[in-house]
Amino acid sequence: MAKQVIVVRKDLKMRKGKIAAQAAHASMKVFFDRNTGEDRFEMRIPLDPYMVGWVEGDFTKVVVYVESEEELLACYVKANELKLPTALITDSGKTEFNGVATNTCVAIGPAADGKIDQVTGELKLL
Amino acid sequence: MAKQVIVVRKDLKMRKGKIAAQAAHASMKVFFDRNTGEDRFEMRIPLDPYMVGWVEGDFTKVVVYVESEEELLACYVKANELKLPTALITDSGKTEFNGVATNTCVAIGPAADGKIDQVTGELKLL
Repeated sequence: MAKQVIVVRKDLKMRKGKIAAQAAHASMKVFFDRNTGEDRFEMRIPLDPYMVGWVEGDFTKVVVYVESEEELLACYVKANELKLPTALITDSGKTEFNGVATNTCVAIGPAADGKIDQVTGELKLL
Repeated sequence: MAKQVIVVRKDLKMRKGKIAAQAAHASMKVFFDRNTGEDRFEMRIPLDPYMVGWVEGDFTKVVVYVESEEELLACYVKANELKLPTALITDSGKTEFNGVATNTCVAIGPAADGKIDQVTGELKLL
């Protein structure tokens, strides 16, 4: 089975709506980063077999948390090492975080459950 | 300018992580519903000019709330009437909501700010 896990920094104490927007950015970025289309008006997004299963299935998304930027980046690095599809979101800080660009969350997958659990298996649900 | 607005039901009292997952579903569904690809392993997603601006810009996502299913569906109906790209998320209820399929949120856009504001301009930030 395939899932996508979104890891959110709890230490930033973001509003619920801010968390939701950042998580949606991350979830989507995994796909948009794969765009190979050369026409600005048509994205072409190649999918691997796990992604196909996920898209044709129930789009399982699990949102978990960490308590620091260090832990967030550790997840991102490990996901890359395991060659999992992953995306890091850095908020520009234009409307929050006192103008400071801030790493807020990471999406990992869609990919095989067991492989993502090697990165996020110990993290708690948000 | 273009934005995407995600309308979430506050009356369901979802966990932060549940809200984030549902919002990400909605945000993504607007795009995946446009898929015209005939190959399961490549999505082809046509973009209108507002979507192109949004994708090439800063992906503005705004999360607001309503207090009832009735208000949520009213947003969805009005967005469709205005021919705005929109997606309604119905949670299967497998893990929450006592097994009852439940409409949780709606994404509207990316589209022109002013046009979306005709639907959600009065709603408060979550």
